[in-house]
Amino acid sequence: MSKKEKNTSALNEKQGVEQPATLSKTAAEKLKNQRKKKQSVDELVNGIINGDKTALSRAITMIESTAQKHQQQAKALIKHCLPYANNAVRIGITGVPGVGKSTFIEQFGISLTQSGKKVAVLAVDPSSSVSKGSILGDKTRMESLVKDANAFIRPSSSGDSLGGVARKTREAIILCEAAGYTHIIIETVGVGQSETVVHSMTDFFLLLKLAGAGDELQGIKRGIIEMADAIVINKADGENVKAAKLAKTEFNRALHLYPPKTNGWTAKTLTCSALNNNGITEVSRMISDFISEMKKAGHFQKKRIEQHKFWLLQTVESRLKSDFYNNTTIKKELKFQLEKIEANETTPFEAADVLLEML
Amino acid sequence: MSKKEKNTSALNEKQGVEQPATLSKTAAEKLKNQRKKKQSVDELVNGIINGDKTALSRAITMIESTAQKHQQQAKALIKHCLPYANNAVRIGITGVPGVGKSTFIEQFGISLTQSGKKVAVLAVDPSSSVSKGSILGDKTRMESLVKDANAFIRPSSSGDSLGGVARKTREAIILCEAAGYTHIIIETVGVGQSETVVHSMTDFFLLLKLAGAGDELQGIKRGIIEMADAIVINKADGENVKAAKLAKTEFNRALHLYPPKTNGWTAKTLTCSALNNNGITEVSRMISDFISEMKKAGHFQKKRIEQHKFWLLQTVESRLKSDFYNNTTIKKELKFQLEKIEANETTPFEAADVLLEML
Repeated sequence: MSKKEKNTSALNEKQGVEQPATLSKTAAEKLKNQRKKKQSVDELVNGIINGDKTALSRAITMIESTAQKHQQQAKALIKHCLPYANNAVRIGITGVPGVGKSTFIEQFGISLTQSGKKVAVLAVDPSSSVSKGSILGDKTRMESLVKDANAFIRPSSSGDSLGGVARKTREAIILCEAAGYTHIIIETVGVGQSETVVHSMTDFFLLLKLAGAGDELQGIKRGIIEMADAIVINKADGENVKAAKLAKTEFNRALHLYPPKTNGWTAKTLTCSALNNNGITEVSRMISDFISEMKKAGHFQKKRIEQHKFWLLQTVESRLKSDFYNNTTIKKELKFQLEKIEANETTPFEAADVLLEML
Repeated sequence: MSKKEKNTSALNEKQGVEQPATLSKTAAEKLKNQRKKKQSVDELVNGIINGDKTALSRAITMIESTAQKHQQQAKALIKHCLPYANNAVRIGITGVPGVGKSTFIEQFGISLTQSGKKVAVLAVDPSSSVSKGSILGDKTRMESLVKDANAFIRPSSSGDSLGGVARKTREAIILCEAAGYTHIIIETVGVGQSETVVHSMTDFFLLLKLAGAGDELQGIKRGIIEMADAIVINKADGENVKAAKLAKTEFNRALHLYPPKTNGWTAKTLTCSALNNNGITEVSRMISDFISEMKKAGHFQKKRIEQHKFWLLQTVESRLKSDFYNNTTIKKELKFQLEKIEANETTPFEAADVLLEML
């Protein structure tokens, strides 16, 4: 209906010849666009649920996009995938560069797919926003896993804040789970806050270590040890076997100095050689033991609920920010205030007052 | 005036005997409270500007308070202190536990006060929010500096997010500068994100290291090295002297592999023994050289402006959050949505939608 016909006055005369609403050019265009949009999201959702890796990749790219249009579609995507999600085991893996994360994840992933599981590997990489480096960037480091039909590997998105990467990874988990992946591995490098982020979205947190010369505890952040559900000492091969065993003993002793976790689990220490595929099945077994134990005692579900509460707050906060910065009036005033700071005509505190009073 | 008299109807009869407005009990009470509040902020500002350490301490405590009333007063405090601030040199110092930060800061602080400067020492300690540990908590570790009339030491505030600690520290810098401190030292421990925070609020960023056995570069985060304006190898005494010199050479070589900084400064490496008070004046000299060089080339002011822009965004974002969470309607709905998550009746994404649509 045209705008004129919306007049509800009793004096309003009905038009003799009315153009059918469905033929209105703008309305038809709108409908067409809506259909197109709906189709594309629907198609992606269908693809994902049927385990189509290309659809999954495209959907994650959509989540990572900063374009307003894509963000709307991403929201719809998540909404449709949510009923199919939440059933996988989420495993966080951290360790400094050189510890052999790629080799470990490849062997661990293969051990899972060989026992009939489906594995997705994601990454949280805050360093990529600064140095533009990227973990998992070089898929050739996981040659066999990349070729595995039951594995999906996604390099980390770059050029964003840690908070942004966290949101995108949480949403990517949902999509991977909807695509039927039973195990989601989230890789991160040992640079402080990123471990906390990965810990906040996983069921099991694994710290990968090397046996070094001397004091095994030097250089490890207390916070990361406190978060770890297991410490696995990699490269326990050749001449390293003895040192790895010693490191295992030392870590074990150290772990017993920490207060017990509220879920009753004592962090385990294991050794392995990802290179020689030694000790990997033991890691798998430990994790599945952990999951069944936690599920039986109700801790698994409890932790998930705590994580969901945390996600709620994080989601609200990130949307508060993006709504603010996308507001056109604010955008204009922010530009003006930044210029005033540049000219030394205001302070950050005064400028913030002006901006917030505009809301 | 009483509420009754506010009736503006023409039929309203004026009371024969009117109590003078100034004698109204509630108005008098309000005025008294206002006077009290105003006095107390004014008193604090006066105290701070006159260099009164007790007033400065009380003001920082006010900044750290989460009570709505104190936050209002804190805002007024900052506003009044700002014209007296911005004139100090701000130095960030980081290093892992055991590197000798306290001893170094004590000797460095004393070297500054002995040359007529005034030194304030603050701390950014994100670990305190988790483990309730605290750097600078034990003032006895800086016995001489504590007794120094021209030094002010403030332990880190605990029980807050890194973002909250950052805001409080930025505001504490303003207050210390208004109190006439010429050098503000911000201490932090090497746990990732906190360095970035300290780097974002200082003019000079110093990484304190130890000479270890073996590879000097192991275990150091690339990001922190990139941020450092100088690496100082501490404990270069006794049998350690040789190892320290070797470490200095290795760091120097490594630093030259990094791309040059935009301000033209090449990060320096020095050795010192804080314990024996060796090499400390060299550190002071290097920093004052840096400052004059940067001021001459205009980089100093440019960096401050960039930092102020960053502070503006940080201030806006933290206020957006606190305004949201302090809104009583939101508070109630948030509680409800969290209960729904607990009962598995909603997802974090849906709950966030509900909350944000209420704004």
